[in-house]
Amino acid sequence: MAKIVECIPNFSEGRNQAVIDGLVATAKSIPGVTLLDYSSDASHNRSVFTLVGDEESIQEVAFQLVKYASENIDMTKHEGEHPRMGATDVCPFVPVKDITTAECVEIANKVAERINRELGIPIFLYEDAASRPERTNLAKVRKGQFEGMPEKLLEEDWKPDYGERKIHPTAGVTAVGVRMPLVAFNINLDTDNLDIANKISKIIRGSSGGYKYCKAIGVMLEDRNIAQVSINMVNLEQFPLYRVVETVRFEAQRYGVRIIGTELIGLAPAKALIDSAEYYLQLEDFDYSKQVLENHLLG
Amino acid sequence: MAKIVECIPNFSEGRNQAVIDGLVATAKSIPGVTLLDYSSDASHNRSVFTLVGDEESIQEVAFQLVKYASENIDMTKHEGEHPRMGATDVCPFVPVKDITTAECVEIANKVAERINRELGIPIFLYEDAASRPERTNLAKVRKGQFEGMPEKLLEEDWKPDYGERKIHPTAGVTAVGVRMPLVAFNINLDTDNLDIANKISKIIRGSSGGYKYCKAIGVMLEDRNIAQVSINMVNLEQFPLYRVVETVRFEAQRYGVRIIGTELIGLAPAKALIDSAEYYLQLEDFDYSKQVLENHLLG
Repeated sequence: MAKIVECIPNFSEGRNQAVIDGLVATAKSIPGVTLLDYSSDASHNRSVFTLVGDEESIQEVAFQLVKYASENIDMTKHEGEHPRMGATDVCPFVPVKDITTAECVEIANKVAERINRELGIPIFLYEDAASRPERTNLAKVRKGQFEGMPEKLLEEDWKPDYGERKIHPTAGVTAVGVRMPLVAFNINLDTDNLDIANKISKIIRGSSGGYKYCKAIGVMLEDRNIAQVSINMVNLEQFPLYRVVETVRFEAQRYGVRIIGTELIGLAPAKALIDSAEYYLQLEDFDYSKQVLENHLLG
Repeated sequence: MAKIVECIPNFSEGRNQAVIDGLVATAKSIPGVTLLDYSSDASHNRSVFTLVGDEESIQEVAFQLVKYASENIDMTKHEGEHPRMGATDVCPFVPVKDITTAECVEIANKVAERINRELGIPIFLYEDAASRPERTNLAKVRKGQFEGMPEKLLEEDWKPDYGERKIHPTAGVTAVGVRMPLVAFNINLDTDNLDIANKISKIIRGSSGGYKYCKAIGVMLEDRNIAQVSINMVNLEQFPLYRVVETVRFEAQRYGVRIIGTELIGLAPAKALIDSAEYYLQLEDFDYSKQVLENHLLG
């Protein structure tokens, strides 16, 4: 079976269409890579690309995109709402199929080493690729942003994993990491009371004592005049979709509120959905890898 | 995207391991074909093979298996519980991915023509490949079995679709067809009363006024001392898994009986399971082909 890796680089350009087009062309130029999706946000001034490929081609495309970004994005002139520290701000790899997290960490290290060696950009490894606990959290790594990085790199604890204590003058610093697949999932409630969505979000999210692999906030959908629990599913193996739906359902019942519907944003692995089918259909002794036809067809 | 076809030939040999091994070796000898599963039943004296491949290689493997069976199975000496009329009794093709039923009917005709031309076995086309309505139903085509076929072929209505009105002396007659993916799915009830499972089966199955694409019977699971509704899902697009589960659930409630669990037998397409996840999770505007990651990876 072919090993498949996903890569989701975030670039600090969401306004200049010529540069975005150049990134797209670069992404499409590497054989063995599929550009699944890309989106740009002008107010964030940031673009997010989603690519998949085998373990070799995903390394090549990641490097070539970082190279293109370093040559075409000038961080000294960058403005935008989203925190950022480099032309390629973050470059996470995600194990998708027949590959372990450890193997993806190896891939992250190879790409980080090459970026630093050929382009002179200092690299921090983060999340599952982090070299020490305080670097696991991307927000801590990026704290100070592009403007604060020259000083931060001189601090005792913040020597880059690859490269010297000195930013790339225009491309800044890049974080290369490995993380689990993340799914954005929203649950719409039949209430116009945002307070209820906020209370439920607080109950379910890990940071306030709920499910460890759940991030959630309440959001008002102005056009439909309903409140939504907006969720990031950080680890679908440990925290499946049905569990968040059923938990939100019984918490909402306290207010006499029902679930109107849910939204899956972007892509999810088939297994994330099939795990929920398995729960609701009460399947006994179901074997995902053996009983799903497509698992015998892929590569 | 590569067109993928499934083929599920049934052979009238479930006892002689050497012949079964020969069929397996033949199945594995064709490039582009994957042997997903095979199982032999001694009391039925029958083996069922499940193969997938592209549209060319599936034709080749089907022909080579029929050829091997015709050279190694002697129907004049065959005994077994299951109705049968040929060494290769039936050979259905199933559209799996990016291929229409009409295209599979073309494949069935090509394979049928070649079997008759090169091996001299007369062929009836059945189900979606049938040339007239009364041949749709395999049971009607096979009625009379191997022993009755010489006479049946002489009847006005039963000239084979390919070949003369004369059986192959040892390989008999083969039915080649096209059908939708079929999933075997059982629902276990927390009762030892088989009568309840039978009553529910009668309500849900098409033949007695229930769902058109549902076949069902009540079965007693002696080892667990529970009754089961044993179901064949004949068309998963028109009759999804969640619908049969929820219908059995509310019908069982009349007797105070609950669903203990369900069993998926063999393989199912990912979409059949994801359709049920979509229902239970109440997904709004979900797009299977776009939002499932694996759909961007397959061939």
